[in-house]
Amino acid sequence: MNHKNMNFRTDLALERRDLYRKANDIKEEIPGIKTEEEYKDSMTISRVKILNDEGANAIGKPIGNYITIDIKDLRLASEEEIQKAAEILSEELKKLYDVHLEEKQDILVVGLGNIGVTADALGPNVVRDIDITRHLLKYAPQYLEEDTRSVSAIAPGVLGTTGIETQEILKGIVDNVKPKLIIVIDSLASKSIERISSTIQIADTGIVPGAGVENTRKEISENSLGIPVIALGIPTVVELATLVSEGIDIFIERLQEKSKSNGFLNELQKEDKYEEVKEALKVGDYNMIVTPKEIDDLIENMSSVVARGINMSL
Amino acid sequence: MNHKNMNFRTDLALERRDLYRKANDIKEEIPGIKTEEEYKDSMTISRVKILNDEGANAIGKPIGNYITIDIKDLRLASEEEIQKAAEILSEELKKLYDVHLEEKQDILVVGLGNIGVTADALGPNVVRDIDITRHLLKYAPQYLEEDTRSVSAIAPGVLGTTGIETQEILKGIVDNVKPKLIIVIDSLASKSIERISSTIQIADTGIVPGAGVENTRKEISENSLGIPVIALGIPTVVELATLVSEGIDIFIERLQEKSKSNGFLNELQKEDKYEEVKEALKVGDYNMIVTPKEIDDLIENMSSVVARGINMSL
Amino acid sequence: MNHKNMNFRTDLALERRDLYRKANDIKEEIPGIKTEEEYKDSMTISRVKILNDEGANAIGKPIGNYITIDIKDLRLASEEEIQKAAEILSEELKKLYDVHLEEKQDILVVGLGNIGVTADALGPNVVRDIDITRHLLKYAPQYLEEDTRSVSAIAPGVLGTTGIETQEILKGIVDNVKPKLIIVIDSLASKSIERISSTIQIADTGIVPGAGVENTRKEISENSLGIPVIALGIPTVVELATLVSEGIDIFIERLQEKSKSNGFLNELQKEDKYEEVKEALKVGDYNMIVTPKEIDDLIENMSSVVARGINMSL
Amino acid sequence: MNHKNMNFRTDLALERRDLYRKANDIKEEIPGIKTEEEYKDSMTISRVKILNDEGANAIGKPIGNYITIDIKDLRLASEEEIQKAAEILSEELKKLYDVHLEEKQDILVVGLGNIGVTADALGPNVVRDIDITRHLLKYAPQYLEEDTRSVSAIAPGVLGTTGIETQEILKGIVDNVKPKLIIVIDSLASKSIERISSTIQIADTGIVPGAGVENTRKEISENSLGIPVIALGIPTVVELATLVSEGIDIFIERLQEKSKSNGFLNELQKEDKYEEVKEALKVGDYNMIVTPKEIDDLIENMSSVVARGINMSL
Repeated sequence: MNHKNMNFRTDLALERRDLYRKANDIKEEIPGIKTEEEYKDSMTISRVKILNDEGANAIGKPIGNYITIDIKDLRLASEEEIQKAAEILSEELKKLYDVHLEEKQDILVVGLGNIGVTADALGPNVVRDIDITRHLLKYAPQYLEEDTRSVSAIAPGVLGTTGIETQEILKGIVDNVKPKLIIVIDSLASKSIERISSTIQIADTGIVPGAGVENTRKEISENSLGIPVIALGIPTVVELATLVSEGIDIFIERLQEKSKSNGFLNELQKEDKYEEVKEALKVGDYNMIVTPKEIDDLIENMSSVVARGINMSL
Repeated sequence: MNHKNMNFRTDLALERRDLYRKANDIKEEIPGIKTEEEYKDSMTISRVKILNDEGANAIGKPIGNYITIDIKDLRLASEEEIQKAAEILSEELKKLYDVHLEEKQDILVVGLGNIGVTADALGPNVVRDIDITRHLLKYAPQYLEEDTRSVSAIAPGVLGTTGIETQEILKGIVDNVKPKLIIVIDSLASKSIERISSTIQIADTGIVPGAGVENTRKEISENSLGIPVIALGIPTVVELATLVSEGIDIFIERLQEKSKSNGFLNELQKEDKYEEVKEALKVGDYNMIVTPKEIDDLIENMSSVVARGINMSL
Repeated sequence: MNHKNMNFRTDLALERRDLYRKANDIKEEIPGIKTEEEYKDSMTISRVKILNDEGANAIGKPIGNYITIDIKDLRLASEEEIQKAAEILSEELKKLYDVHLEEKQDILVVGLGNIGVTADALGPNVVRDIDITRHLLKYAPQYLEEDTRSVSAIAPGVLGTTGIETQEILKGIVDNVKPKLIIVIDSLASKSIERISSTIQIADTGIVPGAGVENTRKEISENSLGIPVIALGIPTVVELATLVSEGIDIFIERLQEKSKSNGFLNELQKEDKYEEVKEALKVGDYNMIVTPKEIDDLIENMSSVVARGINMSL
Repeated sequence: MNHKNMNFRTDLALERRDLYRKANDIKEEIPGIKTEEEYKDSMTISRVKILNDEGANAIGKPIGNYITIDIKDLRLASEEEIQKAAEILSEELKKLYDVHLEEKQDILVVGLGNIGVTADALGPNVVRDIDITRHLLKYAPQYLEEDTRSVSAIAPGVLGTTGIETQEILKGIVDNVKPKLIIVIDSLASKSIERISSTIQIADTGIVPGAGVENTRKEISENSLGIPVIALGIPTVVELATLVSEGIDIFIERLQEKSKSNGFLNELQKEDKYEEVKEALKVGDYNMIVTPKEIDDLIENMSSVVARGINMSL
C-alpha cells in the first residue's frame, strides 16, 4: 500500500492517525507522531503532535499541534455543560497564545462558511457572538479596562457566494488591520457521524478551506498570511461514501463473528471500498455530503461553546 | 419470505411497490395494484392505485390513489421550473377535489413538522404562503370575488414541542371550523437521497405522521376526522441504515460484474442487511436520519412549489 | 371629560392607571384600584389590583390582578440578569398557581403571534423553549420524576395566517387535552418605547388578542374557555400616533419651562391630541405601529426570560 | 438661517432638496441643482443632479447624480410588480455603467449592514442573491457564455460586529481583486415612514455609511477607493425625533386651519423643533430609531427587487 496516497476523507488528525495505523497494522505510535489523551469532566482531550516530515507525510497534515476535544451528547447539552466545554477550549487556546503571541497583541477571528446553509453556518454564527474591542479601543477607550486586547472579527463568506478566494479577502484585511494572530473557525468533514458538531479540533498550523470535502482552495496559514493561524475545526458533515464504506466494514465484521467468514470475505475487507462505493453512489451533484437531521440544534450549541471559549480566552 | 412483514423504510407507495416486486421476483404488476406513468415537462408523474386488500397488504398502505411527481434538480430550479411543477401539482389536486368535494366547499390546509428544524420545516413553510380567505369571507367579504372558497390553514407543531398528538389538535379544529376537506403537508422518509425534497406524493388516503421514521402516532384520515384527507408528502430524510444497506447491495453488484462473484456473495445479497446494519450503526440517538447538506435550498424551493400549487388549485 | 371612553393606546394596566390619574387630576389612588410597588435586583415589580366595577370601568380592564415586572436594559442583558428576571417571573407565577390550581394539575402554554414577523414572534419563540412533559407522561413516564406536572404547549398562529380565530383553535384543544389552567404569552402595545420587550405584565384575567392595536378579536379567558387563564403580556410595539402625541406634550412642557407659555399653550396641552395626530399621520396601512431597530436582540433576550421563568415555575 | 448647517435627518437627496426649498422659501429650483421627474408603471423616478459646489453645499451632498425610484405598496407587491421594479432599477444602472465603465469590466457588489438585525439586513440579503461569476471565469469558464462579465460580491459586516471600518476591509479587497466599479447596497434613514423599504436611491457619488443616523464613519467612494462607486441606498429606518418633529408641524397646521392660530403658533412652526424634541425624547440608547412592524416582509420584497435589478443589469 502506498502510504502517502491514502484518501482519508476526514480533516481530523486524530482520525487520520487511527486510519493510518489500522491500514498499516501499526500497533505502536506512527514514527514522527506523538499522541496523548486526557479525560476531564466527561470530555476527552487528545493531543496529536506531528514532529517531523515522516509524521506529516504519513497522515497528510503539516507539522504542528492538533488538539481534539470530544464533547458527548452536545445536542442535549445543558447550560452548565456548554459552559464547561467552553472553559476547556479557552484553556487550550491560552496555551497556544503563550507560544505564538506576546501579551495583549491584536487578534483577528475569522468565521468561514455560508450563513445561509445550516451545516455551514457555524463560523459566521460564532463571529456574531465574539466580543469585539478593536473599534472601542479606537473610538471609546474610556469604556474598556486598561489592558484590553484588540479583537476584530469577520465572516468573509464562501467562494460560491463571493466569487473571491477567502485567502484574497484575508490578505487585504491583514494588510490593513495588522493583527498578530488569526483564529479561523471552519466546518470540517469527519468519518463518524457521532462527531458532527460534537468535536473541536484546534490546530496551530492553519487550514486549507474545504480540503475535507474535495474542494481544495488556497491555504490560510502563516505561510500565506505572514502571521500565525490557529484553526478551530468542527466536523459538520460526513461524506455518504464514507458512511457506506464504514457500514460495509461493520457488516463484514458481523458476518465473520457469525463464522460465515471465508477467504473472500477477508479479502473484501482489506480492499479500499471507498472509491468503488463512491462511484456506485453517484446520483447527482448533491448526494455526497450528509448531515444529521438534528443539525440545527447541534450547530446552535456548538456555536455557544466556541464563541464563549474564545471570549473567555481573550 | 413473509410478504406482510417487509420493512420498507420508505413512505412512498411507488418505492414500496418496486421493493416488493424485487423481493418477490414479480415481473408484472402486484395483484391488487395498478400503476401508470406519464412524462411532462421533464417531470415524471406516477400513479399507483391500490385496488383491494391484497394490494394494500402487499405494500402496507391503505386502498386509494398515490400520485408521485418527480422533479429533477429542484435544488437549482429556475423560477420557471418552480412554476411548472406548481402547475402540475395544482392539476392533480383539482382532480382529487372533483372526486371528494362539491363546488367551493371549505378546505383546511395543515402543515405538519417542526419549524425550528430545517429538514422538518416544509409543512410550516408552506402554510405561511397559503392564500387564506376564511377570515376575509367573515370580516371583509367585499374585498373578495363572489365565489371565493373558504381556505384556512394551521401549523400545529409536533408532539415533541407541543406534548399533544396532532390528531387531538386537528379534531378540535375540525369540530369548530367545520371544513369539508383537509390537505396535510408532511415530511416523509424515502429510500433514495436524490428524491429528497424533489418528489411529491399525493395520496387521498390520509397519513400516519412519522410512520416512515419508526415513530408511529395516530393517523390523520377520514377514518379519524370524518372528512376526506389529501396527504402531500415530500421526502426530506433518509435513514442511515437504509443508505448503507443500499450501498452494500450496489457494492456487491459491482463485485459480481467484475466476476469476483461466488455462491456466498449471491447469498449475501439476498439477505435483508437492514436490521444487521442498523444494529451495527447504532452510535447514539441522533445517527439514524440523514439529510443532504443542501437541505436549506431544497426546502425553500419545494415550499414554493407546494404553496403555489395549492394556491393555484384553490 | 368622559372617563369611560378614554383611548388608552396601551395594554398595560399600570400605564392606564397613570394616564387616568393624570387626565382626571387624581392625586391619590383611583377608587376601586389598589397599587403596590417593590424593588428587587434593580427590577421594579408593580402590583395593580382592580377590586370592583368602578376600578374596572375607570381603566377599561376586568377585575383581577395585574403584576408588572420592569427590567432595565434587557437589550444588553447578561446571562446572570436574564436568570434573575426569570426567577422573579417564576415566583410571581407560582403565587398565581397557588390561587388557581390544585397541586400538579395540567397546564397548557399558548404562544400567540406570528413567528414570521420579528416584533410578533415572542409567543412562538417562548413555546419552543418550554419543557413539555405531557407526551412523556403518556409514552415514557419512566424517564420522569414521580410527581411531574403535565405541561403541553402550542403556537396557534394568527388570524391573518390561519383564517381561524385563536379562540376557536384553543376551544378545540381545551376540549380534547383538558388542561386545568392556560398560560398565554402575547405581544402588547405600550405607550413608551423604553418598555418594549423590557416589561412583563402578568394578569390572571385572560386577554383579548390585539386589543391594544385596535384589532379586537374574541377574548381568551375563563369566561370563554371554562378554565383560568394567566396572561403574560410583553410590549413589543408602540403606535406612531401615541409617540408623536407624547412628543408634543414633552415639547410643550419644554416651551413652558422656558416661560414661553401662554393661555393657549396650556389649553393645547389639555386637549387629546391623539385623534388629531393619528388622522394627520395616516399615510397608508402600515405606518401606525413602530418597533425599535434593536427588536431582534430584545425579542431574543425576553424569550429567554419568559421561557426560563415558566419552566422554573413548573 | 444658516443654510449650510441644516440638520436634514435624511440620506435622500430628493427629501433634502424639498426640505431646503421649504426652509428657505424657494419656489423654483435651488441654484446648482436640477431635478426631473418621470412616471412609469405606477412608479415615480426622480433625478436630482447636483451641478456645482453651490448645490452641493445647499443640501450637504457631493456633486453627482441621485436617482430615486419610488415603488408604491411594496409590502403587498405581487411577483409581477417586483419584476417591474427590478427592470426599472436595471435600466438606471445600465445608464451609469455606460458613463463609468468600459464594456464587460469587473464589478464588485458590496452589501453593507448586519444580517442579524432585520432592519439592517438588506445589503447582506441582496448579496446572497447576486449571480456571481468571478470564480467560474477562473475555474470553470466552459460553463459561461463567452463575454460574461466578472462579478464578485461581499457582505463585510458592520463596525459593531467586526471592529473594522468597512472602508479598511474594502480597500484590501479592491487591492487584491481589482474590480473596475463597486456597487454598494446600504440601508438609509429617511424622513417619511412610507418610504421605508419602498424607495431606492441610486447615486454615482459613493456613500458615507451610517451618515443618516449620526454615526459617521469613513466614506466609500472613488476618492477613497480609486474606482467609481455606485451607491444603492434604501431607507429602512426613521429617527423617532424626526417623526415627532414632523408630527408637531402637522399638528400645528391643523390647529391653524381651525383658525386657532395666533402669532405664537406661527413662530412655533418656524423654529427647528428637532433638537428640542430629540433632547426631550432621550430615554436610553435604543429609542432613537424606529422601523415599521412589517419590516420583515418589506425587507424581503425589496431584497428581491434589488438583487434582480442588479442581476439583470449585468
